[in-house]
Amino acid sequence: MPQYLATDLEDTIVALSTPQGVGAIGVVRLSGKNAVHICNEVFRGKNLLEQATHTIHFGTIRDDHDKIIDEVTVALFKEPHSYTKENVVEVSCHGSPYIIQKVIELFISYGARLAKPGEFTLRAFMNGRFDLSQAEAVADLISSQSESAHQIALQQMRGGFSNQIEQLREQLVNFAALIELELDFGEEDVEFADRQKLVDLVTTIQTLIRRLRESFTLGNAIKNGVTTVIAGRPNAGKSTLLNAILNEERAIVSDIAGTTRDTIEEVVNIKGVQFRLIDTAGIRDAQDQIEAIGVRKTMETIQKSTILLYVFDIIYTSPVEVHEDLKKLQKEGLEIIAVANKMDLDPYTKPENYVSEIIDAEHIITTSALNHMNIEHLKDSLYDIVLAKKLNSETTIVSNVRHFEALQQSYESLDRVLNGIHSGITGELLAFDIREALHHLGEITGQVDVDRDILGTIFSKFCIGK
Amino acid sequence: MPQYLATDLEDTIVALSTPQGVGAIGVVRLSGKNAVHICNEVFRGKNLLEQATHTIHFGTIRDDHDKIIDEVTVALFKEPHSYTKENVVEVSCHGSPYIIQKVIELFISYGARLAKPGEFTLRAFMNGRFDLSQAEAVADLISSQSESAHQIALQQMRGGFSNQIEQLREQLVNFAALIELELDFGEEDVEFADRQKLVDLVTTIQTLIRRLRESFTLGNAIKNGVTTVIAGRPNAGKSTLLNAILNEERAIVSDIAGTTRDTIEEVVNIKGVQFRLIDTAGIRDAQDQIEAIGVRKTMETIQKSTILLYVFDIIYTSPVEVHEDLKKLQKEGLEIIAVANKMDLDPYTKPENYVSEIIDAEHIITTSALNHMNIEHLKDSLYDIVLAKKLNSETTIVSNVRHFEALQQSYESLDRVLNGIHSGITGELLAFDIREALHHLGEITGQVDVDRDILGTIFSKFCIGK
Repeated sequence: MPQYLATDLEDTIVALSTPQGVGAIGVVRLSGKNAVHICNEVFRGKNLLEQATHTIHFGTIRDDHDKIIDEVTVALFKEPHSYTKENVVEVSCHGSPYIIQKVIELFISYGARLAKPGEFTLRAFMNGRFDLSQAEAVADLISSQSESAHQIALQQMRGGFSNQIEQLREQLVNFAALIELELDFGEEDVEFADRQKLVDLVTTIQTLIRRLRESFTLGNAIKNGVTTVIAGRPNAGKSTLLNAILNEERAIVSDIAGTTRDTIEEVVNIKGVQFRLIDTAGIRDAQDQIEAIGVRKTMETIQKSTILLYVFDIIYTSPVEVHEDLKKLQKEGLEIIAVANKMDLDPYTKPENYVSEIIDAEHIITTSALNHMNIEHLKDSLYDIVLAKKLNSETTIVSNVRHFEALQQSYESLDRVLNGIHSGITGELLAFDIREALHHLGEITGQVDVDRDILGTIFSKFCIGK
Repeated sequence: MPQYLATDLEDTIVALSTPQGVGAIGVVRLSGKNAVHICNEVFRGKNLLEQATHTIHFGTIRDDHDKIIDEVTVALFKEPHSYTKENVVEVSCHGSPYIIQKVIELFISYGARLAKPGEFTLRAFMNGRFDLSQAEAVADLISSQSESAHQIALQQMRGGFSNQIEQLREQLVNFAALIELELDFGEEDVEFADRQKLVDLVTTIQTLIRRLRESFTLGNAIKNGVTTVIAGRPNAGKSTLLNAILNEERAIVSDIAGTTRDTIEEVVNIKGVQFRLIDTAGIRDAQDQIEAIGVRKTMETIQKSTILLYVFDIIYTSPVEVHEDLKKLQKEGLEIIAVANKMDLDPYTKPENYVSEIIDAEHIITTSALNHMNIEHLKDSLYDIVLAKKLNSETTIVSNVRHFEALQQSYESLDRVLNGIHSGITGELLAFDIREALHHLGEITGQVDVDRDILGTIFSKFCIGK
């Protein structure tokens, strides 16, 4: 436990746990040694000190002049059977901001302190209710806006990720102990730790870390929405396609080439995955100054995207031009769907198979954005690309940049272990590198002391009351 | 119970009871015969059907594919020991709009129905948990923004008002029964009901109703804020006074007479009472067309106000002019505080006692709005005027226009009873008028059938989930 927080943990903290505003009820939460005692001072109904854990009691909250502030129900959670593993009291008041303010003020006057953001969850972590990656998942869970983001956060909160990290750590710990034992024997040339087995283990662990590291691209995309850029030559129908996917009129559409100058961003939820669709200015050698800026922005946007919908006009764009564009636009890790648009203009002379024959791209879809033709098929393809990255509830997906970096550092330490074994370095240096790898893995779950700044950063992102 | 709602009561209803938005927790509430059963279908942890009332259980909510939606705590309230007197389940989820939507959808798929606004409280009323005036007080309590409004609502919710109405009704019911008994004896000239005692009772009840009716002016003012208009001749310092009371720069102040043309409204909370301060254009024979409209608006505003702060310039306004103004501005029920302003300009030649000697008004205060002199004293006076109307937590104050109207109608029926006795009308007509008075009193508490439209109006003002 970081030293600076030790005293803080003695306090009883209080906060509104439900969203701000007017509602039927609002829940004020107390946690700490004196939680039940403080509530009992202002509660009339029963003696709360004599009640069992996980029970609910009806009564009134009264101020120092015995004036009633509200009729409430009080839920008791006695330590360690609570979210924070401390005594917790949840007071359900009428959902009036006036009443809630009065109740919180009253608890403070009886010795509680206003909780900082995330402090309830911080205490849960400090008291061993769950590890750090699980605590972080609570914040992700609350802010998740799509089924996939929700699933990743839930799996992480329930310890799926922690378990995998823990397994890796346990195996390594054994080796580190054996190598350190060798050191105790000093000059004697003993080798308790089988070097070949160590190489095998480190290689296995690195494979696992690589998989987790790779999942981050997807995990991060899902958490923040899969960035999907719509690009193509002017007047290919990019904005019309965006509107068709959104099924509403969002982008300004005209048949004057170059209508879209700013990038337009919209969020669409396809089968539980959130996509950030970005419409862009057409790519061409722009003569107009403002348009030239738009084109540069388009290229920058593509650099940051996960999926590119390359839209081209089936009538006026030649296969050679399409190939030129695709070559120019591709980058590593970018999934490209080539969208042959305006099929409504000449569907007979250029049928679907013709298009897929002449265009050399992994994914090709023929559409008429104007007539909403094949738009559902396009949406399915977007989803399939994400699904192809093996998104299901059993897979562990890293979605947190802090975890990603710790995995990266751990991987590098393990690289040094392998190189060390090959070059026959001393057991001392080997043990050091293994410990370092262990440390970075431990940072993820908080099993090693985590820097106070890191803890501060993690919990300050929480809402007050959690 | 109104017929049209009978079937509705059979359903199990569900709604989010906490405010919309992201928070640490959100509470989804189920109420109805099948509440526990429906929750049990999707809850994994314990068999909720076997658990006692007022207990809390930790577990998961799972969808039809056994996919976890959230980790939750479930609070059980078994009939009749709940807010609605039905089975009630409160599910505390993580406060993510995504999760809450999923949980509610799941409950609906298992047979619950989305609750209408105020439907939980409607059921509490229907099932005799409290009467109609108490149910209405719940909505007032949630929306109360000042201590006084909160106190009135709380007192009404806890049945103070209902008890008084009930006592009046009971006494009248006895008389009505005696008079109806006389009718059974037909031609025989019997008088079971002592006419003089009836006159005494009706007179007593009318006195009580008058007091309740009178309290409405204050009750309504407190509920919506005490309307306090600031008026006076141009350049008397009205806007400066408003700013001084608010302790901030709100109104545009200049020393050019006629700066304020629109009425400006600000809310200030003085010792727990909310005042709506309205600054107005100066009253004079305006030459400017726009200003003339301003003056007319001022007069209209005064008509709707509870308190008038009449501000005058202590140097340039003569006592005769002040008297003229006060005469013009007074109306029945309007409390006037005469504010002798600009004391900073000549405090020696016109000391306080001089002012109170020459000005004939109930409340006089000398101020310098510019130097914030005596502003706190002025605020105290505003509060005292409200307090003088005997606002304390024991007094019953009518704050609901529906109740006010029912009291009014009841009073008129009782008038007819008195007139009837004097003119010696038949027992039949007398009984009819008494029953009518009883009916109107009963409307307040809902003891008689209340019109479905009235119920609809009352409960549609509630938030969903209450």
